[in-house]
Amino acid sequence: MAKVVYRVTFEPDGRTLEVPAGRTLLEAAQAAGVQLEAPCGGRGTCGGCRVLIPDDPPAPSEACRRVLSGEEIGRRLRLACQVRVRRDLCVVIPEEARRRDQVILTEGVAFDVPLRPNVRKVAVRVPEPSVTDQRADADRLLDALAEAGLDGLTVGPAMLRELPRRLRTLDFHPAAVVVGREVVHLDRPTAVDACYGLALDVGTTTLVGYLVNLVSGETVAVASRANPQAAYGDDVIARIEYCGRQKTGARTLQALVVDALNEILAEACRRAHVKPAAVYEAAMVGNTTMNHLLLALPVDAIARAPFVAASASSHSVPARSVGLKIHQRGRLYTGPLIAGFVGADTVGVILATGMHAAERLTLAIDIGTNGEIVLGTRERLLACSTAAGPALEGARIRYGMRAAGGAIDRVDIVDGRVTVRTIGDEPPVGLCGTGLVDAVAALAEAGVIDPTGRMRPAEAVAGAPDLARRLRPADGEPAFVLVEAGEACCGHPILLTQRDVREVQLAKGAIAAGVRTLLDVYGAAMDDVAEVLLAGAFGNFIRPDRARGIGLLPDVPLEKIRFVGNAAGAGARMLLINRNLRYVATDVARGVEHVELSERRDFQERFAEAMLFPGA
Amino acid sequence: MAKVVYRVTFEPDGRTLEVPAGRTLLEAAQAAGVQLEAPCGGRGTCGGCRVLIPDDPPAPSEACRRVLSGEEIGRRLRLACQVRVRRDLCVVIPEEARRRDQVILTEGVAFDVPLRPNVRKVAVRVPEPSVTDQRADADRLLDALAEAGLDGLTVGPAMLRELPRRLRTLDFHPAAVVVGREVVHLDRPTAVDACYGLALDVGTTTLVGYLVNLVSGETVAVASRANPQAAYGDDVIARIEYCGRQKTGARTLQALVVDALNEILAEACRRAHVKPAAVYEAAMVGNTTMNHLLLALPVDAIARAPFVAASASSHSVPARSVGLKIHQRGRLYTGPLIAGFVGADTVGVILATGMHAAERLTLAIDIGTNGEIVLGTRERLLACSTAAGPALEGARIRYGMRAAGGAIDRVDIVDGRVTVRTIGDEPPVGLCGTGLVDAVAALAEAGVIDPTGRMRPAEAVAGAPDLARRLRPADGEPAFVLVEAGEACCGHPILLTQRDVREVQLAKGAIAAGVRTLLDVYGAAMDDVAEVLLAGAFGNFIRPDRARGIGLLPDVPLEKIRFVGNAAGAGARMLLINRNLRYVATDVARGVEHVELSERRDFQERFAEAMLFPGA
Repeated sequence: MAKVVYRVTFEPDGRTLEVPAGRTLLEAAQAAGVQLEAPCGGRGTCGGCRVLIPDDPPAPSEACRRVLSGEEIGRRLRLACQVRVRRDLCVVIPEEARRRDQVILTEGVAFDVPLRPNVRKVAVRVPEPSVTDQRADADRLLDALAEAGLDGLTVGPAMLRELPRRLRTLDFHPAAVVVGREVVHLDRPTAVDACYGLALDVGTTTLVGYLVNLVSGETVAVASRANPQAAYGDDVIARIEYCGRQKTGARTLQALVVDALNEILAEACRRAHVKPAAVYEAAMVGNTTMNHLLLALPVDAIARAPFVAASASSHSVPARSVGLKIHQRGRLYTGPLIAGFVGADTVGVILATGMHAAERLTLAIDIGTNGEIVLGTRERLLACSTAAGPALEGARIRYGMRAAGGAIDRVDIVDGRVTVRTIGDEPPVGLCGTGLVDAVAALAEAGVIDPTGRMRPAEAVAGAPDLARRLRPADGEPAFVLVEAGEACCGHPILLTQRDVREVQLAKGAIAAGVRTLLDVYGAAMDDVAEVLLAGAFGNFIRPDRARGIGLLPDVPLEKIRFVGNAAGAGARMLLINRNLRYVATDVARGVEHVELSERRDFQERFAEAMLFPGA
Repeated sequence: MAKVVYRVTFEPDGRTLEVPAGRTLLEAAQAAGVQLEAPCGGRGTCGGCRVLIPDDPPAPSEACRRVLSGEEIGRRLRLACQVRVRRDLCVVIPEEARRRDQVILTEGVAFDVPLRPNVRKVAVRVPEPSVTDQRADADRLLDALAEAGLDGLTVGPAMLRELPRRLRTLDFHPAAVVVGREVVHLDRPTAVDACYGLALDVGTTTLVGYLVNLVSGETVAVASRANPQAAYGDDVIARIEYCGRQKTGARTLQALVVDALNEILAEACRRAHVKPAAVYEAAMVGNTTMNHLLLALPVDAIARAPFVAASASSHSVPARSVGLKIHQRGRLYTGPLIAGFVGADTVGVILATGMHAAERLTLAIDIGTNGEIVLGTRERLLACSTAAGPALEGARIRYGMRAAGGAIDRVDIVDGRVTVRTIGDEPPVGLCGTGLVDAVAALAEAGVIDPTGRMRPAEAVAGAPDLARRLRPADGEPAFVLVEAGEACCGHPILLTQRDVREVQLAKGAIAAGVRTLLDVYGAAMDDVAEVLLAGAFGNFIRPDRARGIGLLPDVPLEKIRFVGNAAGAGARMLLINRNLRYVATDVARGVEHVELSERRDFQERFAEAMLFPGA
């Protein structure tokens, strides 16, 4: 039987090709070399591949209805990935659906994100009122914007309050700032390029902000702060408990994190010479507790079984309603959450690494205060969260610190002699997460730490006098001197204590047990994993053999391990610069299967086992 | 040629009939006796006649796309008025589209309004969380509501803040209150009937509130107040000027009107034994200035040519954002406006009188501080506003008062002797608008007032000694004693002064000139008008022959005149109890042609002429 083919013509280019019956229009477009955007990989969730079918368009699919508005469906728009070719077709690619400027995110994430921000700033000429044109100010502005191609917009009451004056001050020639479907500001028409957004990665221990130019897609400044909530507990459970004990606890923690985010905003703006009022939207990812604390949602149910959030949805709220000092009518978008301990940061990791579109089995580990693990392919994704603790971010460690100048990030023991390297080659100040892992790995390898994690007495390593000399108890617990007082900038020795080793054991044990449990639930073996992605600011500097050596990373060939940097932050930037990805994010968050480790006896057993070092 | 007919079957009743090709499904349904709601008269604006066409529905029309959501279009819903029968069809009438309880509004307005409020209160059972069901609280609530038939809802941050606690307090068995598409409250499941709305008619001089049970559609209490803004100017121009002079003027006026509306709310709730927190939505109509002052929008451009509003749209804002003390997350809907001086109150009059669906030429006059006039049919409606002044509401008149006990509402002169009647037969206190018109008409008829409006000297009416005796100047201006001091409850005579007569002349002159101008623009004569509708609280008691006698009402046969009471308030109630009518209102507001009288020289001439009394 002859194969049935149909002719499909893509306008306005006029490219025509024959397409086997049953192919999707997206596949046909790709075959024709017609560029369509489909960051969701053709799953009908991002709305990027919308095309116009002028002649008798097929009934909209379930996905079309979800992603497109009634008005768009009526305008005969459909998603190319949802339309199968069953007759000759003429298809018009709307201007806005063609791929525009590409933005490549750095930091190990290579994923094309078309610039399609939720914020637009457009200069328009608005007809002045007259007796023959008595339209209300809002109507004349919206009509002018509709003529410029932006229709279906609204003007909220707060903007309306200054609209008449602004229109007249600007001689009816404003640059209108539109966030989502709402006009939030009228600026001078010459300021049309002053249009910024802020991507926020709100971590339990670390806060990072990326100031992004929404006209070019470029990240123009990055700033970070320690999360000041840490003063009230260094993991999320401790902070939730604080909120339960203290009536105003949640308000205190909300104010603290917002103050720090405003400092980040101010610093990034200062460095890039941008006014905070030219920042019209912030896009935030964070774990469920960070999300709820920032939005002032109740957190108590998160900490008790069965660990449910108040809301797992994405939200778009006035930025000022949470105290964020971007433009006074700017908005804050918060990414969707997966479960009580797996938040939008994990969704960001999935988006940034493209796991939701991956064909090969991929494992991602995001090391933060909680260690979130994701395993799967585009067909199925599993996620879990492990209480890794903040050790790998340098917290809860006697001489721990963030990865800044003077932090020890490498420890080597060669021929029984210890050498350390610091960031910026500055005099040693303390240990960052990378250095901590390196130190523990080196000491375990050298036999200073036994397979159960116990520091051996000095006598046991008498064969290496330098090591034996450094094994000097401090405050009644075993400890190892990494840097003698004379060499440290602080005037006292820099130690790795027995307790520090235990913290690392807890962290790596939790992560390794989580990985094994996910593999088990998925029904795969470690060998089936094609790639292991290590996310988290910490991962960029770690030595993979060392991390694998102590069991923090799984036992796979080193070439399978890839560092993807702060993938959560990269995900936040993607959500900031491409509003269509917000649909993808919601779809991903709903689709990921959450594995609740706390209820699994096998996890507890694996955890106990995984705390040991090799050789046990 | 034989007429082409098709078979149309209406499910679930199974009624089948043959329909000539080209008829609409709405016409077919009406012919089949299938009850469908179409308050817009089949113009495709109200969305009431939505039907499901399971098999190959036609492409949605422009109107369908505007009124139906993408999701509804995808579910194969169409508007019956928009679908023409061109083949055999099976049509399913969705349960919600069948006519339910009818609500007949009183006060002269006979217009069926199906109960379809924007507020719904539904008891649902929400599955409790467990380790195998870790959905966020918001998701489990929304999923339960979707199962109950309410899908596509959201929960805003403020509601989310109390959601976890409320769900647990109510043992996961709440009555969810939904306003629009947002869940705003969780109540006890037994309180499912405690669901109220407040319709507000915010006039320049008078404020009226109707408390409506949104489960039954019944108006359970009415309360009114004088608009306290009157202390800062008794017409809208004076108030706008006050706002221009005083920096905090707009804020003062906003606070004053909201305080009075809250008093109305409290009084209506007290009388009906309803808690203000069980009032979840308010629907407000008012002229453009009242609308903008309440919403805190700038008013200055309204008072200067070309008289433009900041916004003519309808709005739905949190009621608390303007200070209205209904439920803390309740909403205020404000109806759409037509022009700078023709507001949502006029839209309300049009809706309540059904002028937008009228086939015969209809003239409506809404007498308030501004006199709004509407002329037309369903094909074309014209509207204008005239500065009638507050005289007919009893203000700016020496002994003027509202229509309350003791107000003179009738004045007769028989055989040269004066008799007056008061409301409630109480001792006379002052003159209400009705009595004022009656008095001026009686005095003009008796020759006490000459055709130019001048009070004649006593000598000129010497033939009627009672009248001559009553012509006694007061404070240097001519005046007529309606009630002698001894008969009045206040201990002083109740006068009609020369200035009072001038106020009536201005009011009736403005209205009459407006009517004539609209007729002229429409290209019709007074004889072409099939019906004259008189709206405004004042109209219910006026004697039509008297009003016609002085030229306040046009010179048409009395049987053409109908009083429709407070039609603006009736319109507000319609918008409160049927959310589909809000689309109709927006359509009407956009469609009405506004005639700007101030710019027309012919209006000025007509005005001068119309101020005279018959016989001039």
